[in-house]
Amino acid sequence: MGSIGIVAPTTMHFAEPLPLQSGTQLGDYTLMYETYGTLNAERSNAVLICHALNASHHVAGTYADAPKNIGWWDNMVGPGKPVDTDRFFVIGVNNLGSCFGSTGPMHVNPATGKPYGAAFPLMTVEDWVSAQARLADRLGIDQFAAVMGGSLGGMQALSWSIRFPERLRHCIVIASTPKLSAQNIAFNDVARQAILTDPDYHGGDFYERGTVPKNGLKVARMVGHITYLSNDDMAEKFGRKLRDAAETGIAGRSDYKFDFGVDFEIESYLRYQGDKFSQYFDANTYLLITKALDYFDPAREHGGDLTRALAGTRAQFLVASFSTDWRFSPERSREIVEALVSNRRQVTYAEIDAPHGHDAFLLDDPRYMGVVRAYYDRIWEQIPAQEAA
Amino acid sequence: MGSIGIVAPTTMHFAEPLPLQSGTQLGDYTLMYETYGTLNAERSNAVLICHALNASHHVAGTYADAPKNIGWWDNMVGPGKPVDTDRFFVIGVNNLGSCFGSTGPMHVNPATGKPYGAAFPLMTVEDWVSAQARLADRLGIDQFAAVMGGSLGGMQALSWSIRFPERLRHCIVIASTPKLSAQNIAFNDVARQAILTDPDYHGGDFYERGTVPKNGLKVARMVGHITYLSNDDMAEKFGRKLRDAAETGIAGRSDYKFDFGVDFEIESYLRYQGDKFSQYFDANTYLLITKALDYFDPAREHGGDLTRALAGTRAQFLVASFSTDWRFSPERSREIVEALVSNRRQVTYAEIDAPHGHDAFLLDDPRYMGVVRAYYDRIWEQIPAQEAA
Repeated sequence: MGSIGIVAPTTMHFAEPLPLQSGTQLGDYTLMYETYGTLNAERSNAVLICHALNASHHVAGTYADAPKNIGWWDNMVGPGKPVDTDRFFVIGVNNLGSCFGSTGPMHVNPATGKPYGAAFPLMTVEDWVSAQARLADRLGIDQFAAVMGGSLGGMQALSWSIRFPERLRHCIVIASTPKLSAQNIAFNDVARQAILTDPDYHGGDFYERGTVPKNGLKVARMVGHITYLSNDDMAEKFGRKLRDAAETGIAGRSDYKFDFGVDFEIESYLRYQGDKFSQYFDANTYLLITKALDYFDPAREHGGDLTRALAGTRAQFLVASFSTDWRFSPERSREIVEALVSNRRQVTYAEIDAPHGHDAFLLDDPRYMGVVRAYYDRIWEQIPAQEAA
Repeated sequence: MGSIGIVAPTTMHFAEPLPLQSGTQLGDYTLMYETYGTLNAERSNAVLICHALNASHHVAGTYADAPKNIGWWDNMVGPGKPVDTDRFFVIGVNNLGSCFGSTGPMHVNPATGKPYGAAFPLMTVEDWVSAQARLADRLGIDQFAAVMGGSLGGMQALSWSIRFPERLRHCIVIASTPKLSAQNIAFNDVARQAILTDPDYHGGDFYERGTVPKNGLKVARMVGHITYLSNDDMAEKFGRKLRDAAETGIAGRSDYKFDFGVDFEIESYLRYQGDKFSQYFDANTYLLITKALDYFDPAREHGGDLTRALAGTRAQFLVASFSTDWRFSPERSREIVEALVSNRRQVTYAEIDAPHGHDAFLLDDPRYMGVVRAYYDRIWEQIPAQEAA
């Protein structure tokens, strides 16, 4: 079991416009993607990995010119890893509207010759899946062995199972939800308001002005980050530890500062994470992705009935959730499981007792990794002529 | 049982500087307060009500020139109400640093002749209690029948029991905590960052500039507000209801807007609350109060041992919490109860099954009101010569 090593992204250009759920379309776009492993002769061992809010096509491995830039699910995908690239041909694709390579708000709008900015159309999970399906067409993959994702990525996997039921044999939905709650939407809207009211945002057209709404992005990330961590984990890691007390290691040196600088470790941590994020992430992308999250609700066109929404699915499912995830709690995953069971779909459900909240889906919990590994063993056993892979 | 009717605030000026926990002092300050009911001849029926983040001395009744300005705990305090003003002499006092009357950042700093702004010293719960004690001195009240508060107000009541054990017979701590968790501090710091990075904040000295950091305050309030409501209550009240669908009442009219305006009712509600708040609340006050919350930790000077921190208390206690309060959960109240029980204090603990989250302490839950009423009946029975009141 090792890392996949050095990888390189590829781009695929699409000249035919993509019709969007908003009623508009995106013409002339590019998708950036990476692949790991080898597609077998039968083209039956392909796995699509869908990414969440701040991730990308760079799922595993590193880059020759940036060895520290390790893929976001490198612990999950690689030779001998749960998603074993000695067996499977794994594709990571960057979603439209992202700031990591695929066409997004910072790219030039061919209609105006200027960056899209606010003119970039809002995207839905379904739009992303449409674009991913076109990429699969081009790669000659009629049916995936599995489509898999965590959080927002899990929504895409679920959407695949609904929109293209014949194009995936397995659907793997981790730490996700069939729709956001009012509280989820509320946190997203706080983040959006922070960005939209940042004077450096300039209504989305900040690229030409040479500004970046860093303060808004920082606050947006801070509030998001709180929802990714469990209360218990935050208490254990940070508690009420004071930053200076920790730095000096002197227990007595624990006085409050009585200003608005950093008193507590948790403040230092969150501000640092917020600052870092605001330096690499795009504000328009953040807004767009939070709206895609808010809008996802496949039961909506079925009068809110998730069972009916999932009636046409054909895949087998692995659904996994984490006990301390309060962003998308196990209860939300159970809604998916119950709707699938009502449809007599074959479902494996794992509710993993893990302390790390929503972020657990990215981390190395042995039970979690074991569940995914066992499930992929099953996927592998179902692939005919596996020796030829 | 009726409203207390028309009331009027009073001010009390203090020329002697107040030493503060930060090591500085506040010289020459004014406290604004209101009283309801009549102090008896023995001065034994006084109740002090401590306020939380966005409240004030205006606990009950209305103002002659503003009949809609009803006190924030008018359901709790009045003739025949749980805190019965036919029996008790109730005092509401506005804390220093507030924006509702007592000396605060927007008032003139005598040292400079300009508004304090950023120069206003940070305050702690203990500092507020010191100021309240001085007010009690002036009013000739040696011992309160009870000191009572919810949330941040409950911290003040708890601090009274520690700092002035002989000056209160009963301590009533509702929906509070002996200290903030890392998650609580994190949410406060998000709010602070939103305000501090608003260009209209001008390092706290925005009064002279004629600006108000409304955007920052709005975001701060929105994130705070989410933590006051329970997840379930938000789901029930708002769910994924779309604003236009609700307005038109037409079920089919439920299309997403595909812009960053308002799609969901919860967005509309939170933005409205945030806007309203930013129009009346002061940014420096908000910052100051969140720091007072963060800093409160009476066990800190006892090596984190709350039992030792409460060892010197003499009061009897009522502690109450609400099942769906995730800001200061019942578990946090139980920590107080356990520390009091370890000290063999007399404690009544009520964990009230209520759907409204942290905000429940302000609302009319009949079980909650019943518990407080019964407890005040007991306080009343313990007052000698009560017929003379």
